[in-house]
Amino acid sequence: MIEKNWIWFHDHFGKGEEHHHAITRFIAQVDTPFQHVEIGISPYFGKIILIDGDVQSSIVDEHVYHELIVHPGLLSHPNPKSVLILGGGEGATLREILKHKTVERVVMCDIDRQAVDLYKTHLPEWHQNSFYDPRVELIHGDARAYLEKASDGEFDVIISDLTEPYSGGPAQRLFSVECFAEMKRVTGPDGVYSAQASLLRLKTYEMHLAIKSTCETAFPHARSCAGYVQAYDTPWSFIIATKKPIPPIDDKIDELIAQRISGELKFYDREGHRHAFSLPKDIRTLLSKKTEPITDNKPFSLESKSSDM
Amino acid sequence: MIEKNWIWFHDHFGKGEEHHHAITRFIAQVDTPFQHVEIGISPYFGKIILIDGDVQSSIVDEHVYHELIVHPGLLSHPNPKSVLILGGGEGATLREILKHKTVERVVMCDIDRQAVDLYKTHLPEWHQNSFYDPRVELIHGDARAYLEKASDGEFDVIISDLTEPYSGGPAQRLFSVECFAEMKRVTGPDGVYSAQASLLRLKTYEMHLAIKSTCETAFPHARSCAGYVQAYDTPWSFIIATKKPIPPIDDKIDELIAQRISGELKFYDREGHRHAFSLPKDIRTLLSKKTEPITDNKPFSLESKSSDM
Amino acid sequence: MIEKNWIWFHDHFGKGEEHHHAITRFIAQVDTPFQHVEIGISPYFGKIILIDGDVQSSIVDEHVYHELIVHPGLLSHPNPKSVLILGGGEGATLREILKHKTVERVVMCDIDRQAVDLYKTHLPEWHQNSFYDPRVELIHGDARAYLEKASDGEFDVIISDLTEPYSGGPAQRLFSVECFAEMKRVTGPDGVYSAQASLLRLKTYEMHLAIKSTCETAFPHARSCAGYVQAYDTPWSFIIATKKPIPPIDDKIDELIAQRISGELKFYDREGHRHAFSLPKDIRTLLSKKTEPITDNKPFSLESKSSDM
Amino acid sequence: MIEKNWIWFHDHFGKGEEHHHAITRFIAQVDTPFQHVEIGISPYFGKIILIDGDVQSSIVDEHVYHELIVHPGLLSHPNPKSVLILGGGEGATLREILKHKTVERVVMCDIDRQAVDLYKTHLPEWHQNSFYDPRVELIHGDARAYLEKASDGEFDVIISDLTEPYSGGPAQRLFSVECFAEMKRVTGPDGVYSAQASLLRLKTYEMHLAIKSTCETAFPHARSCAGYVQAYDTPWSFIIATKKPIPPIDDKIDELIAQRISGELKFYDREGHRHAFSLPKDIRTLLSKKTEPITDNKPFSLESKSSDM
Repeated sequence: MIEKNWIWFHDHFGKGEEHHHAITRFIAQVDTPFQHVEIGISPYFGKIILIDGDVQSSIVDEHVYHELIVHPGLLSHPNPKSVLILGGGEGATLREILKHKTVERVVMCDIDRQAVDLYKTHLPEWHQNSFYDPRVELIHGDARAYLEKASDGEFDVIISDLTEPYSGGPAQRLFSVECFAEMKRVTGPDGVYSAQASLLRLKTYEMHLAIKSTCETAFPHARSCAGYVQAYDTPWSFIIATKKPIPPIDDKIDELIAQRISGELKFYDREGHRHAFSLPKDIRTLLSKKTEPITDNKPFSLESKSSDM
Repeated sequence: MIEKNWIWFHDHFGKGEEHHHAITRFIAQVDTPFQHVEIGISPYFGKIILIDGDVQSSIVDEHVYHELIVHPGLLSHPNPKSVLILGGGEGATLREILKHKTVERVVMCDIDRQAVDLYKTHLPEWHQNSFYDPRVELIHGDARAYLEKASDGEFDVIISDLTEPYSGGPAQRLFSVECFAEMKRVTGPDGVYSAQASLLRLKTYEMHLAIKSTCETAFPHARSCAGYVQAYDTPWSFIIATKKPIPPIDDKIDELIAQRISGELKFYDREGHRHAFSLPKDIRTLLSKKTEPITDNKPFSLESKSSDM
Repeated sequence: MIEKNWIWFHDHFGKGEEHHHAITRFIAQVDTPFQHVEIGISPYFGKIILIDGDVQSSIVDEHVYHELIVHPGLLSHPNPKSVLILGGGEGATLREILKHKTVERVVMCDIDRQAVDLYKTHLPEWHQNSFYDPRVELIHGDARAYLEKASDGEFDVIISDLTEPYSGGPAQRLFSVECFAEMKRVTGPDGVYSAQASLLRLKTYEMHLAIKSTCETAFPHARSCAGYVQAYDTPWSFIIATKKPIPPIDDKIDELIAQRISGELKFYDREGHRHAFSLPKDIRTLLSKKTEPITDNKPFSLESKSSDM
Repeated sequence: MIEKNWIWFHDHFGKGEEHHHAITRFIAQVDTPFQHVEIGISPYFGKIILIDGDVQSSIVDEHVYHELIVHPGLLSHPNPKSVLILGGGEGATLREILKHKTVERVVMCDIDRQAVDLYKTHLPEWHQNSFYDPRVELIHGDARAYLEKASDGEFDVIISDLTEPYSGGPAQRLFSVECFAEMKRVTGPDGVYSAQASLLRLKTYEMHLAIKSTCETAFPHARSCAGYVQAYDTPWSFIIATKKPIPPIDDKIDELIAQRISGELKFYDREGHRHAFSLPKDIRTLLSKKTEPITDNKPFSLESKSSDM
């Protein structure tokens, strides 16, 4: 398509900061009961997913996000057999989990059936048919309710692949102290929690801090990491948290990958791990601030947010 | 100023990718003999410098760039006394160099007197009066000519704080094999070369690669590093190169900083160093490609560039 | 849909002049063999049609265009029974013609069957089922070829509802001296030609002038008129031309409408006619310039165009 | 200046409708005590004035506005000797008034001395030194206070060249019933009132209607007219109102211009007058609605405005 026919999607970063992405064509524009989902073609990135006014994923660098949300967490567990994904939409988190040879069962609980069906049809590059792997149980329902019904110690690792817990939004009750108590209960003594935890940069870090602070009420050994995702224009952060003290895996990442993962990784190896987990001094200073945990009744406050979220 | 009066600066990243920055007011808009310089106020970043259609620096995160262009390089030399800056405009590279207690002489050779005078007046936050330190010689002239007249071994470290060597642009002859031969000659046996080396991300790495490949003709031990600069929306890269094998300083950065630097650093310490020098696997794969060095007669080719430079 | 999900269509008017229209949703985005057609919903205008990067029509003011392309022309003929539309896409020109009680036959010749089928489905507000009126013959084929096969004097009025004859574009051979010779042949002695003739304003008038100059080789009594269309941000112009001297109808428009038209008009009446046909002095001065007619081999030159077309 | 250095000014028309104008350079950006004034150079229009986020005037078509605000009004008076301008900023309204041979005295009362001084320096193309004509009295003060002190019948014509009376804005008390009572008092029995009266088009007409309705409480014979100003992308409207019935001047405009005006007009002549005063049926229908007059205590209501003001 010629350039004059491009249409533009505006990603708003903050006061007076907008990234405009050209789109040549939409594959889908759907209002599900839970969100506004658009799948389009960008002349620069290729296939791109937009949700509720934000870039969600691009085919160029979705692997950065999906490798970091999965592998550091699973490698922090000595022998992860059962994994629960909260959310997980496009199926790429599932795809990465299934590369782990130890994994015998993955439950993915995503409330938005219509969105997941759309992704099954239109995003084969993301899910690579992982939805049809026999180890997978796909559940469409409220993840908090699912957690509350799960057995004690049922899961080794919980991966939180949700939108951020903005006040009043659908994810608030999945990032609260009360919910972490459930996640503590349903994971075993080696239990690991791994979550996407919003953007992390000098002007935007409060959401990350709030999630980390809340997580530590159940999984006391929490580490922050981040990887740059060009489609977001920013480093994107994750929290990997364990019940037991953090195992000394950092210098053995390459060996662990060789033993436990089948299939190729693109971003994550020993150097990628060091890059993601070694945060510069200015960022560490910001993350040393104290923040109130999120509770069911006291959400992450919009008032306390930095200006660009 | 109210929002409806904002004016907008468009940073073009690639085909159909534009970041629009609001500007509330311009402090200066000047066409020097060499470039178009604008200093403005952004409602998000505060003071911001725009050069030839690109964001050059913001007060929020200029330290990321200026600490990485200076400290890894100077700490790679056992005892840097004399430093040459090629370019250096705003005086912030100078500011960081002057924090090194060993440094006795800094020559800054920037061809654009009008721009530097503008910065002296309007950017005190950047230069912090470094131009007036008695160790500093400020020269306005052609840096290549200056190098050709310099004595053998006159400098310990050369910092290249220039715009990228686009074909036909003013910087081409400062990144050529011929120029590196001069830089090899005017530095001593422990000589270090440190340069800003363009943006580095999955879709944009060729310029970095071309500079590195050329640099290695004179300083054979070259390392890439990068730090995220929010005003650029991207990790920005640097090349630190030595004549001798790279000294094993990586685990001693905090000690070296304590010994040799006076004044506070914001980004750079042991963890910041590890972050910047540990590149993820996908980026390392891109940087393992072979590229032709730049020569005076054979510039970095626009044709071979990725689409977003 | 909430504002942050809007996507934006850019209408480029000239050097550094862009009108950005928000679109909440696309009803269709189709590449036909001839053009790129998009039907969308604008939060401001409602339903809107975009073709090849330009706003084509909005539900708010399509009547201005379609009343002016039809009624002055048909009222300039004493008794129009058969009308030929060149182009006509959305069927709104058809809709207006069918309001004339004298009309017994309308041939609409539009080459783009796929676009017209799309309009039949998605634009009932425009065509109001006019395609199914028994007086209508809809032909999908080359309009020039159709004209060449038509009988002498077969039509009373020809309405040219085409895109502008840009060099190399599909419409060039429908605005050439050679084509006007055919249109002269196939219309009777009272023959009328009515055409959309591009935007008309102080900085953009050359295309209008070129069409008028060419038209006068066959229909010597040509008048310009224009009406403001908000979706275009500009007055849009038309040329109404007759073989015989212009009849003195200007003060009798209201009587003629009452006699000959059934159904309501929105824009056009005696005052609307005076508004559209009385052009200010500065515009008349521009239109008094001489221009070369367009021929099959010598198109309207892009070089001679003003900067904003 | 090259295109990538352009900066952009956004004119907001309504919900999801923005016109972006490139600016190559600002001549001035000033916050006066009353408004934010910018004078810039547009690559398309040339010199352009921006006030409080709206395009105020461009050198290409300021004559359309200034001829329509002055000449129909002055020609509606049998022998205008003394004229009062409320507002008048750039001095172009003054320039047009001074072309009338009958005029012996013009008082221009504009509250913003700093803006007018800026215009004197930077907008010679607009004022053409009219400020220095011996017939002119320039007063910087509150126009309402000036009116209240003026003598009965002191002026023949009042020209209102002000910003629109948005609620709470500076102009509200200059468009109220109470102010019109003063204007009635200070004009003679042949008194004429001529005002810019906001944009007028299918989706935006309420402000025009409110001004007209209020004006008629003092000058009962009010007519609407409009001329397209490309820099505004819209027809701009004016109200010309008289105490006595409207004189039958419409067919004698060319003769009146020849007798009473020295110097050339660009837009306004008999045809330009007919164009501006003959409004299409759809616009006339909108203007036939009833609206409450504005009073000192009851402003034009933002709630009742159309969406695009």
